[in-house]
Amino acid sequence: MSALAVPGVQPSVRTGLSALFEPRGIVLVGASSTPGKLGAAMAESLAAFAGPVLHVNSRPAATPGVFGGIAEAVAASPEPVDLAVLCVPAAATADALREAAAHGVTAALVCAGGFAEAGGAGLEHEAAVRAVAAETGIRVLGPNTSGFFVPRRDLRASFVPGVAGLHAGSVGVVAASGGVNHVLAFHLERAGVGVSLGVGIGAGLGVTAPDVLEYLAEDEATAAVALHLETVADGPRLLDAVRRLSARKPVVALVVGRNDVSEFAQSHTGALATSWRTTRAVLRQAGAVVVDDETALVDAATALSGRRPAPREAAAVGLVTAQAGPGLIIADHLHGAGVPLPRLADESQRAIAEVLPPLTFQANPVDTGRPGPGYDRVLGAVADDPAVDLLGIYAITEPVLDLAAALKDAGVDGVPAVIGVDGPECDVWRAREAAAGLGVPVLAGPSALARGLAALAADARAQHLREGEDDGAAARWPSDGTGPLSGPWDEDRAKALLDALGIRTPERRRAATRAEAHAAFAELARAGGAVAVKLLDASVLHKTEIGGVHLGIDSAARLDAALDALEAAGASAFLLERMAEPGVDLVLGARRDPVFGPVVVLGVGGIATEVYADVAVRSLPVSRRSALAMPDELAARELLHGFRGGPELDAGALADAVQALGGALLANPRIAEAEINPLRVTQKGLVALDAVVIEPADTPLTVEEDA
Amino acid sequence: MSALAVPGVQPSVRTGLSALFEPRGIVLVGASSTPGKLGAAMAESLAAFAGPVLHVNSRPAATPGVFGGIAEAVAASPEPVDLAVLCVPAAATADALREAAAHGVTAALVCAGGFAEAGGAGLEHEAAVRAVAAETGIRVLGPNTSGFFVPRRDLRASFVPGVAGLHAGSVGVVAASGGVNHVLAFHLERAGVGVSLGVGIGAGLGVTAPDVLEYLAEDEATAAVALHLETVADGPRLLDAVRRLSARKPVVALVVGRNDVSEFAQSHTGALATSWRTTRAVLRQAGAVVVDDETALVDAATALSGRRPAPREAAAVGLVTAQAGPGLIIADHLHGAGVPLPRLADESQRAIAEVLPPLTFQANPVDTGRPGPGYDRVLGAVADDPAVDLLGIYAITEPVLDLAAALKDAGVDGVPAVIGVDGPECDVWRAREAAAGLGVPVLAGPSALARGLAALAADARAQHLREGEDDGAAARWPSDGTGPLSGPWDEDRAKALLDALGIRTPERRRAATRAEAHAAFAELARAGGAVAVKLLDASVLHKTEIGGVHLGIDSAARLDAALDALEAAGASAFLLERMAEPGVDLVLGARRDPVFGPVVVLGVGGIATEVYADVAVRSLPVSRRSALAMPDELAARELLHGFRGGPELDAGALADAVQALGGALLANPRIAEAEINPLRVTQKGLVALDAVVIEPADTPLTVEEDA
Repeated sequence: MSALAVPGVQPSVRTGLSALFEPRGIVLVGASSTPGKLGAAMAESLAAFAGPVLHVNSRPAATPGVFGGIAEAVAASPEPVDLAVLCVPAAATADALREAAAHGVTAALVCAGGFAEAGGAGLEHEAAVRAVAAETGIRVLGPNTSGFFVPRRDLRASFVPGVAGLHAGSVGVVAASGGVNHVLAFHLERAGVGVSLGVGIGAGLGVTAPDVLEYLAEDEATAAVALHLETVADGPRLLDAVRRLSARKPVVALVVGRNDVSEFAQSHTGALATSWRTTRAVLRQAGAVVVDDETALVDAATALSGRRPAPREAAAVGLVTAQAGPGLIIADHLHGAGVPLPRLADESQRAIAEVLPPLTFQANPVDTGRPGPGYDRVLGAVADDPAVDLLGIYAITEPVLDLAAALKDAGVDGVPAVIGVDGPECDVWRAREAAAGLGVPVLAGPSALARGLAALAADARAQHLREGEDDGAAARWPSDGTGPLSGPWDEDRAKALLDALGIRTPERRRAATRAEAHAAFAELARAGGAVAVKLLDASVLHKTEIGGVHLGIDSAARLDAALDALEAAGASAFLLERMAEPGVDLVLGARRDPVFGPVVVLGVGGIATEVYADVAVRSLPVSRRSALAMPDELAARELLHGFRGGPELDAGALADAVQALGGALLANPRIAEAEINPLRVTQKGLVALDAVVIEPADTPLTVEEDA
Repeated sequence: MSALAVPGVQPSVRTGLSALFEPRGIVLVGASSTPGKLGAAMAESLAAFAGPVLHVNSRPAATPGVFGGIAEAVAASPEPVDLAVLCVPAAATADALREAAAHGVTAALVCAGGFAEAGGAGLEHEAAVRAVAAETGIRVLGPNTSGFFVPRRDLRASFVPGVAGLHAGSVGVVAASGGVNHVLAFHLERAGVGVSLGVGIGAGLGVTAPDVLEYLAEDEATAAVALHLETVADGPRLLDAVRRLSARKPVVALVVGRNDVSEFAQSHTGALATSWRTTRAVLRQAGAVVVDDETALVDAATALSGRRPAPREAAAVGLVTAQAGPGLIIADHLHGAGVPLPRLADESQRAIAEVLPPLTFQANPVDTGRPGPGYDRVLGAVADDPAVDLLGIYAITEPVLDLAAALKDAGVDGVPAVIGVDGPECDVWRAREAAAGLGVPVLAGPSALARGLAALAADARAQHLREGEDDGAAARWPSDGTGPLSGPWDEDRAKALLDALGIRTPERRRAATRAEAHAAFAELARAGGAVAVKLLDASVLHKTEIGGVHLGIDSAARLDAALDALEAAGASAFLLERMAEPGVDLVLGARRDPVFGPVVVLGVGGIATEVYADVAVRSLPVSRRSALAMPDELAARELLHGFRGGPELDAGALADAVQALGGALLANPRIAEAEINPLRVTQKGLVALDAVVIEPADTPLTVEEDA
């Protein structure tokens, strides 16, 4: 029986997240008047709501306005009741939901814990709730969350009393944890931007983070979104939601779980964590700005709640600072974040020199010293500089200085700006209020300003890399000469696949016998140079470890010695290859992530990927721009650009290889993983020295294990 | 003529930094009544001072109380005038200082810029000021600083009006920049701890950061010190001051200049930056807690203003959190910072289980859920756990929860504790005030709490590593068979030095001719295994790059081929060595840092040191504990502990090598640098495969160049 089948109870039906976040009436089940009880705290929070809030308690005291049942409460409501807020134990939840749904309620907040995360009877409670939700269609937020709030509607469904003071703001908060939702709301309130909607997902039994992200895409009051993630249940759906939302407004994401705190995490979320590094990488690829902690999340969301920057590969900052010391902190941070502070054009510097004394630094940062008359002209000259995409302004507040007025006088509407101020709390607030009128965010402190500016640049870059997202990255299995889709895949066959994908391999010969090996050696050695001889066996994944690789074979005698050794190691077939030129070794792999599905991983060979976890990751399909940007994300990128007279990476060829290998994985569901290790950067271009293709899907890429 | 030679002007003389920070009377030179002028802002800030503040202006209007000269002002003062605050241009500074000194003033604050950092005439102005200071002994703070403040004495010598609202606190701030001094003061005020003394060093012409650190060591109002550094003029003196101060109170240091912003930095400081990485490492060695930005500096100083932890190699945190989501953020951060969260003892968990419902996680972190009755017993059980050194408490504030009262009831006086809270601003302040009564610092937000706890652990570790600081690390040049102190140093001689220092080298033979080389080969090969043959020439630093190293020589024919090649590369002498076992290569160097003097640098071989800048640095002499801790500071430390069946590092032998090599550099002033590259970790212990000794001092270690 669906809620729609109940006639006459509700005059109209509001469904989906509108019922949750824009209810006409609310029924609070488990309402209490005993101070300290959750049901009492929730009642107090909901008291500010303009529509009807009906209180239900199964053991109603003789309190006026408290109903003994949901039916009675809904019937007494002057408005349709769309939302049920449940402050009842886990064991009582399913029944309450069923009763609510039966009376036209289409959304519910379930605060209690004690479901799947607790094990035991909790598993049954959760199954019962799922069954009711499936049966009735009621949308459940929770369980195990402290709630949500929409300050502009005076709707605060939270048992944290402090939410009463939250003002309407422009940042949407979607937090895995109810607690973190509150933390972010209080910090955003303190930052002067406030929240449009704050949601703690909790166990995510019904309403999930992607659901809320989709809702926020349409929510006009939301200028930017702060996303907090612990574990991800449905990776592709999350990425899709972030992709579509970030196309419309900035999304900043904090992913918890860099380090192994799995026992505690599991007790909290009831789910296993996936790779932190992969989650961050694919969120970034989907258009999010990824940050390191909740301090940075608040600074970034605050900065991005103002004017959004245009897509730009490397958005450059023009920085105007009234104090050199804080300016140095900001410049240092921006350099570290890869955000350019370009030298201003001569014309801009001339304009600035007309205002500032010659003692100050005027090239960028512009050190104004104590701002005086003409300060607005300095701001204007920096904002108008052709190399400047973003304007950063820092000052210790002074009564003589009205930054917002100067900014207004400067007329720099076209350039996204962020102000950093320090001073007594009241001066900071005055600056915030003045700048709010111009839509310019204000952050307190040089590092906060730097984090905000870096977030603007990261958003501009993420949007730039998404352009042309759909070109040429589709599933593609080569038709030319690679045999059936299925294995077994020995190195020769894996390399034939690479050949067909256009990824260069060394010239090679397969040999089933020693005689064939000698003939192959003679052929390969004819052109000069030594030969590599390897064991050829699809069942051996790590040839080197069992002595299955012999390099630098330059004579028949050495070949015989190598063949002896390979036969001793169990070889019944051999692969002979011309030795490759020297160069820098990369690792390129495509595999199926348990959460996000097909991904490609690029790293530097040797210890870099494993010990330093220095990898670039993309979900598939990957756009050409995004593939081209992968090597630049490696900490060791300088190795790829003529390091110590070494070779220069052909970035286009690498992007080709990334897209081709990724396309093959997408096209062939039998393949669990394909890895080229090493993929060598040489003076003559990229060459794949070894390759492994694995099926079925049971072996994750080792480079993706976080340290 | 020194100030002391002027008779009769002052009844007594107060000298040194007491005159600056505890003046009896002040003369303000360049006082103004024109709003917006520096001299007016300074006059306003100084107005709150209880002692006499005499105003001087060379063009006095008919304003009562403004004197036309310093002499006149000092004569009119009812108290001795110890401090002159100068708001006059650079060109007028030296004369004003001279006049002040002549009338018994022993300290001065010089705010103006336009000295050496400006070049040109500024150089002359600076020379003049230096001359006056040298002649009269007057202590000059500045030039180019916005001043200092001692809120508890109502002494605020700053032209930033907001300082009027700063309250007396317990953190001493020593900032390279006047602006950053103010930033830190405002942030510490907001954090609820406030400053005891805040100083912007500016150009540091007279009073330097070490001077103020020494003063703060004796200042009873100062519980912890926040240090901001841009460039360091006198490295050894700074380290000495930090060493002595941190032995008494915690020191937190922020070093700006990770990235190259040299042009702007130079315009600001007039000095060249030294290595950021070295500065941080040696500060840590000297006992400071080193942080990454000013947000972390404030959080760390706030946390360390409470009870100081006992020295401990790895101080462990017991974390009690009322919300799991923020708890996960804290635990994740602490794990990343290497701070253990040990599983609580069964007894502690039993005590906790008596209070908390079975659904919560109780092993550490302890997830209390919404705190209720018995919460104090949970805190007590965690604090009393034998594995717990530090107590972290987190909660979103609620009216029902008085953390400070619970903490008091728990009676956990013995364990340093930090509270993290979130909620409306007024609730956070209430929590701060309540906890202040117990001497427990309060931070806002889970990441802030984590940063604070990590700072406590870092302080405990720094103090632990300093114990036994003076043992066995002295200058020591081996007397046995290494010839004269001076070079030239070819590889054979460098290795003889290592032998004498007790650092193992492979068995080797020197050969002046091919015949000698063949004889040496026969001898070395007798024991089995191949031989390395190298060019032997003290003038060649990079043998490999010119083909001067031939490995794996296993026959007379191959030896001849190698000798041919070496002769072609210019060799007139050869070094033959037995090939070493495989293993993991380290780099160990001792060199003279231009700022900090003798240092040792340890890194992993290959690209790790250069590309990832993964190095551990120590100033010399280095204590055994500190030397032992070096490999653990490498990001790649897992390589040294049986990585993939590889060898295990003998940490004691490495510490021996660090101290021996460092001792040799300390003992022999002729040596600029000694580097062992590689120093291989093998199953049979450490072995030095190549060594270079360089004199004179003109070639810095390349691994110390920051990326």
